[in-house]
Amino acid sequence: MIDIHDRGFLLGDGLFETILWSEGRLVLFDGHAQRLIRGCEALGLPAPDPEVLKQAAETAVVSAGLVEPRAAVRLTWTAGPGGRGLDRPQRPSQQLISTAAAAPKREAPVRLVTSGVRRNEGSPASRLKTLSYLDNVLARAEARAAGGDEALMLNNRGDLACAAAANLFWVKDGALFTPALRCGVLDGIMRSEVLRVSAEIGLRAHEVAVNVDALAGAEGVFLSNSLIGLCEVAELDRVPVPRAPVVERLREALADVA
Amino acid sequence: MIDIHDRGFLLGDGLFETILWSEGRLVLFDGHAQRLIRGCEALGLPAPDPEVLKQAAETAVVSAGLVEPRAAVRLTWTAGPGGRGLDRPQRPSQQLISTAAAAPKREAPVRLVTSGVRRNEGSPASRLKTLSYLDNVLARAEARAAGGDEALMLNNRGDLACAAAANLFWVKDGALFTPALRCGVLDGIMRSEVLRVSAEIGLRAHEVAVNVDALAGAEGVFLSNSLIGLCEVAELDRVPVPRAPVVERLREALADVA
Repeated sequence: MIDIHDRGFLLGDGLFETILWSEGRLVLFDGHAQRLIRGCEALGLPAPDPEVLKQAAETAVVSAGLVEPRAAVRLTWTAGPGGRGLDRPQRPSQQLISTAAAAPKREAPVRLVTSGVRRNEGSPASRLKTLSYLDNVLARAEARAAGGDEALMLNNRGDLACAAAANLFWVKDGALFTPALRCGVLDGIMRSEVLRVSAEIGLRAHEVAVNVDALAGAEGVFLSNSLIGLCEVAELDRVPVPRAPVVERLREALADVA
Repeated sequence: MIDIHDRGFLLGDGLFETILWSEGRLVLFDGHAQRLIRGCEALGLPAPDPEVLKQAAETAVVSAGLVEPRAAVRLTWTAGPGGRGLDRPQRPSQQLISTAAAAPKREAPVRLVTSGVRRNEGSPASRLKTLSYLDNVLARAEARAAGGDEALMLNNRGDLACAAAANLFWVKDGALFTPALRCGVLDGIMRSEVLRVSAEIGLRAHEVAVNVDALAGAEGVFLSNSLIGLCEVAELDRVPVPRAPVVERLREALADVA
């Protein structure tokens, strides 16, 4: 249970991480902890100790009886209880909540539907995993209602941004593309890993600000996040999308972390 | 206390209302209840019964021992507990939380500071009081850090939108102006009241999409919300703003509701 005066609950004032537990370890834990700490800096919140985060994550897995083989751990770090209004209290008392659930299965290729809900490229929160995640909820619901599995989100300029719960990549002319963070894109841990290993396998990667026309003629489109790794896109707005062989090569290169 | 699996806490998936209790009654209660119900439609959430909301609000005032003379009541309506991820459960179980606190004092004229955090005009949530209110928290904190009292928020196009916790109005050439809702503006209950009474006192009012240059040469700038009524702006980004006599006329016309 959490205090009804917690600003995480009242105002979405806080951050979270979703971390894969696989074969007895927290995958890419340091990346997740460092992102949470960077997020605290951006939000002006005191940051948690990474060791405390790690213990909380491991405790959550064990408590939920999910040690084998894969689990999804969520760490939530809130601004803590506060009084009425937007101003944080003089002496905040942050709260750390950790939970674990069964990890989602590796997904079959998904049907992506372009959402009318835009990413807010003009807010630092658009690059963070914050407790103010309603736009993502609305975009996902819209995609489901249209018969899709996941939403494609654009920003207010019409630039490609990301999916509701994943980053977006596409392959074109033999190179890899993903929307730049400034487009209002979550700074995904798996996104960074994809960019890192693409260099290792000799695939040029570009972070770009482009509109949806850039997907025309793509040789493949895929999503990434920490729980599912890479997930191919089968359709975009009911139009079939080709499957790029390079996705399998990226998956192999990511085998240690996804 | 609230369940740590409540989607209001995990994802900001829910709505709230802040209602003034004054002299033994909930001020403009019907407007607040109807806005919450419209918000539920926009978010795809089942809506609460207005009578249940009213009882919850009154109970909160009495429980907090705040019957005399003014109190601020907050009603929070969440999407309820859910599993991992963005998708709502098949059978949601919404939660209603009501609290009351001392109402803020009528404020002296405020120093407004333009925030770098933009309103997301491309999301329906920008027109609603949702639990995903972090952008407003960040804008307010930025204004405080710059020595101000409240933030002026623009949208991603650079249009004027609103303050972090209030709507924006200005007087120019003898007419009243306020940003249009489509600019990413909270559909304020007091905003609607100001527009209503401006007609009664023969003041033309315009809802506009304009950038910050529109404030140059304003004869007065003020904010509105349900708790403070009208609050004049003394400075914008450290530049003094004139005081328009029409604000006092609007205040008198609003006397029944503010």
